[in-house]
Amino acid sequence: MPFVSPINIKRGMTVSALAKQMESVRVLGPGRFGRAVRILSQMFDDQDYCKMLSIAGPIIPGGLRNILVDLVEKNLINAIVTTGANVTHDMLESLGHRHIVGSETDNDEMLRKKGLSRIYDLLVKQKAIEHLEISTRHMLERIPLEDRRNIATYELLWQFGGQLKDKKSLLSVASRRHMPIFCPGIFDSMLGLDLWTYSQLNPLFINPFKDFSKLVNLSYEAKRVGAIILGGGMPKHHVLIANSYRGGVDAAIQITLDRPEGGGASGAPLEEAISWGKIKRHDNLVTLVGDATVLFPIITLGALENAGK
Amino acid sequence: MPFVSPINIKRGMTVSALAKQMESVRVLGPGRFGRAVRILSQMFDDQDYCKMLSIAGPIIPGGLRNILVDLVEKNLINAIVTTGANVTHDMLESLGHRHIVGSETDNDEMLRKKGLSRIYDLLVKQKAIEHLEISTRHMLERIPLEDRRNIATYELLWQFGGQLKDKKSLLSVASRRHMPIFCPGIFDSMLGLDLWTYSQLNPLFINPFKDFSKLVNLSYEAKRVGAIILGGGMPKHHVLIANSYRGGVDAAIQITLDRPEGGGASGAPLEEAISWGKIKRHDNLVTLVGDATVLFPIITLGALENAGK
Amino acid sequence: MPFVSPINIKRGMTVSALAKQMESVRVLGPGRFGRAVRILSQMFDDQDYCKMLSIAGPIIPGGLRNILVDLVEKNLINAIVTTGANVTHDMLESLGHRHIVGSETDNDEMLRKKGLSRIYDLLVKQKAIEHLEISTRHMLERIPLEDRRNIATYELLWQFGGQLKDKKSLLSVASRRHMPIFCPGIFDSMLGLDLWTYSQLNPLFINPFKDFSKLVNLSYEAKRVGAIILGGGMPKHHVLIANSYRGGVDAAIQITLDRPEGGGASGAPLEEAISWGKIKRHDNLVTLVGDATVLFPIITLGALENAGK
Amino acid sequence: MPFVSPINIKRGMTVSALAKQMESVRVLGPGRFGRAVRILSQMFDDQDYCKMLSIAGPIIPGGLRNILVDLVEKNLINAIVTTGANVTHDMLESLGHRHIVGSETDNDEMLRKKGLSRIYDLLVKQKAIEHLEISTRHMLERIPLEDRRNIATYELLWQFGGQLKDKKSLLSVASRRHMPIFCPGIFDSMLGLDLWTYSQLNPLFINPFKDFSKLVNLSYEAKRVGAIILGGGMPKHHVLIANSYRGGVDAAIQITLDRPEGGGASGAPLEEAISWGKIKRHDNLVTLVGDATVLFPIITLGALENAGK
Repeated sequence: MPFVSPINIKRGMTVSALAKQMESVRVLGPGRFGRAVRILSQMFDDQDYCKMLSIAGPIIPGGLRNILVDLVEKNLINAIVTTGANVTHDMLESLGHRHIVGSETDNDEMLRKKGLSRIYDLLVKQKAIEHLEISTRHMLERIPLEDRRNIATYELLWQFGGQLKDKKSLLSVASRRHMPIFCPGIFDSMLGLDLWTYSQLNPLFINPFKDFSKLVNLSYEAKRVGAIILGGGMPKHHVLIANSYRGGVDAAIQITLDRPEGGGASGAPLEEAISWGKIKRHDNLVTLVGDATVLFPIITLGALENAGK
Repeated sequence: MPFVSPINIKRGMTVSALAKQMESVRVLGPGRFGRAVRILSQMFDDQDYCKMLSIAGPIIPGGLRNILVDLVEKNLINAIVTTGANVTHDMLESLGHRHIVGSETDNDEMLRKKGLSRIYDLLVKQKAIEHLEISTRHMLERIPLEDRRNIATYELLWQFGGQLKDKKSLLSVASRRHMPIFCPGIFDSMLGLDLWTYSQLNPLFINPFKDFSKLVNLSYEAKRVGAIILGGGMPKHHVLIANSYRGGVDAAIQITLDRPEGGGASGAPLEEAISWGKIKRHDNLVTLVGDATVLFPIITLGALENAGK
Repeated sequence: MPFVSPINIKRGMTVSALAKQMESVRVLGPGRFGRAVRILSQMFDDQDYCKMLSIAGPIIPGGLRNILVDLVEKNLINAIVTTGANVTHDMLESLGHRHIVGSETDNDEMLRKKGLSRIYDLLVKQKAIEHLEISTRHMLERIPLEDRRNIATYELLWQFGGQLKDKKSLLSVASRRHMPIFCPGIFDSMLGLDLWTYSQLNPLFINPFKDFSKLVNLSYEAKRVGAIILGGGMPKHHVLIANSYRGGVDAAIQITLDRPEGGGASGAPLEEAISWGKIKRHDNLVTLVGDATVLFPIITLGALENAGK
Repeated sequence: MPFVSPINIKRGMTVSALAKQMESVRVLGPGRFGRAVRILSQMFDDQDYCKMLSIAGPIIPGGLRNILVDLVEKNLINAIVTTGANVTHDMLESLGHRHIVGSETDNDEMLRKKGLSRIYDLLVKQKAIEHLEISTRHMLERIPLEDRRNIATYELLWQFGGQLKDKKSLLSVASRRHMPIFCPGIFDSMLGLDLWTYSQLNPLFINPFKDFSKLVNLSYEAKRVGAIILGGGMPKHHVLIANSYRGGVDAAIQITLDRPEGGGASGAPLEEAISWGKIKRHDNLVTLVGDATVLFPIITLGALENAGK
């Protein structure tokens, strides 16, 4: 029977060295944190891995945008499945609107009157959202009519990314690198409202089946698939279900604060997905209970240090 | 300053009487439970309320199907927004497949070999899922080609509901009563796989914009809208965002185990939605921290007792 | 393999009838809720069960005081292990101080200036706490010096209970009925501060070993022991560890919002305690994820209805 | 209004540099993580701060023992308030018993038969616990009778620490450096059982009032007090309540997975303690939602890097 080993820390040690210490604990949170860094390192180090990232919750507004951009540019992420909100916030930032510091105890009726909308302790100006509507309309106009009649969300987002002036936006980088961003819930976001509004008077047909075909193909053609799951929601499940055609992903890490007992997919342990054929086997899986906006930057830093060694 | 009053219970008292006792606590969980029953009672009692129910998590497989059916038949629910999973499980049950009792510690690789898939401690036979694929194909065939070329999910589900032989299924009852069931994430479910597979060789275009138009119209035309939010996910947000065109819902209860600090929409307090114009004001809102599959049957029973008094 | 059965509700049905419906679900939250009612019913119905209740969190200030009093008077609770806070609040209420309705977004520096202290959305007057200090001193004076030199917390609380004029307080009823209330963390509460202050100038030696001997004896002499665990903390663990001398409790229900993954005792599943010899076996155990101040009144009502049938 | 700034990471950057990036997010988890590192750095850097650490949950068995030892040796922790379990596990390790790697799905009846006890996915041999009982008895024998008649837990633990041969145990280091370890819930642990057993036939009177006097004095005499709160439970509350005599602590960080809505002290936000006079004001407070065994090593590493700059 293997033993638990304690963590030793030393001023100036790297995150990857700390993660190695934590992996030697083997159990509880530290063991899982250490394993998460190792699994992510292996994905980063192995060109055969198609790395699929799912994001739900305030990943972009919570400050992780540049980290995602950096990973895409380094070819360390090969597909993203996201909520509509994260796309919306990437576009808002691309249009020059910054998120504002608020408080979780702010009075929401007051905020409404001031033209501010709240995500926990972070604020967005209504003006920014109005600006987004206008920009979205202009960007849609510039998409050839033929394309608009039957478009996947990843194609639409490539189009937007190609038109955005902010070359450091996630959409822009993804567009340049032809890395697909899938947004199966695009209809359910501020951006989605703009698309729907536009569609009332102009031809625009979004076809999610095209998205799914693309995602299934990516999965099917990959030698190995690694899932990096930040938060739960539809993005998590979507990555997993698309991989059922290849017999499941080969490795996965998930970081979530959701709990399993309620039976929802968001908080479900990765192991459950094995019984559905969405994950291959128990090796190379780890669930970290915690806030993805805190843990993912740290884990990524550790994995980047390890990679290429 | 109002005071906290203690709860008194007596053998044989009704749930509504208990809820009244709990409302008098005013604070903490009991106060919120009591208010939830009162708010739901008011929605049930007021014909002017358009009651929109959102469901995420194992509401149907967790045993609440007949409760939903009953509420729809009594005209106490006027629209449902659901995950694809809940539709899938309603259809599985309609085809005669029952859910099986398992354990959350079951070995998932073993289950996979036995042809069983797991949701926490509940099992589904893979055979049932294969049966669903065949049935879905047959049901799709029977939908007129013209309808299939541009169909909303609520229309598709009415079509399925009309064809199902199980007259007590949620889809069937919704179809008979022309109560729309919206499924914005239908692509992300076992049923969604079947639809996608079908669409590869046959004409089938699902148009989520049609769904959103219908949902917005329902909201817009209602004198009052009440949201009943079980779990988070896209269904929760979808009900709220669709109501932003009318200035927000008038009353809402949500039951969830998700927590707010991560900043995701699922765990966000209802108050936050006021700043987005998705909820009108602080009155008539209540968030219950807990498992919806446990609390909703109890709250509903209490509200049904109150209604019509 | 047993099947999941759906819940059917009917206006006017009792909580125990609803619980029976929910037990037939067998899985997820409803199955656990139903089992909790059944297990509690069995404890209530069987005179051979020594029922030990542990309370942590705002059980008394949250409005459950009369429920506990009622159970003690009916001989349905035979020992209580509590945090110091719940004793403090029982005494505050006994002295005529009521809890005040506040809000979880109240400004705490402002509250401090106004002489109000906060527990989530509930407030206590500092004046009440000062009153408690004086009363505690008077009550201590009336305890014979000899008793004070080596006193268990259950003896101290019987003394207080005997002196309180409020005959409906938990301490008072426990004192009259000679039902022990153990408070292993009494030193860690507002009441504890008063005891410590008194002990600086007067003879007062609290001996927790005497408490533990009494608790172990109760456990040892019982034909059967049933644990009812509301919240986690030291009270939960204390009931369980005291029962390790008899080979563990025979039945247990716990209601908690704490989660297991962090490895703390509060959120640990009851099954874990089997490996420590604190619980006998897997039968008759159930953990309900939820707020004890909401669920315990409902479960108790259901169990009272069943009992004696 | 201040703005949210994104995080930039770079291979090889230190944890303190990453924390600075995260602090610039200002909101959500990253902002809190960054602030936690800064506040801890300030405590470490300021000799006037009396640093009080509270630990609940598997801090020692989870691998953090050497980190605590290191901080105590560097004089960066000046008092510890702990659960009995953490003391028990420090002693077990000091006696040469290592923790074993298990699984959270292990069968507990089987483990019991094999003589193994479980904490989530970590195992302890019953033999080790029996060994602890014998060792504790021997160590108690060596404590002068006069001391045993009225001993505080911190004095008892100094005695044990002085006798343990493992010079790297937390108790041993604390004893050598005369840093007090308070254990208000010592009666509620495996070690507590051993103490109680011993007390049945031998003179041993533990006096928690002596502990509290010492803790209050430490707090009262300090120029500044900083609280580092890992997990909730009695240790958290004990540090805070002892500081109410000086008007509250001056700075505090807490890391917990417990949630606030249930109203228990474990999950309560630090701000609430301001209304009780246990914390001075809103500045220099931060609550991190997460697993302390994961986040504390990382935060400590970051703070150590900053300190002394």
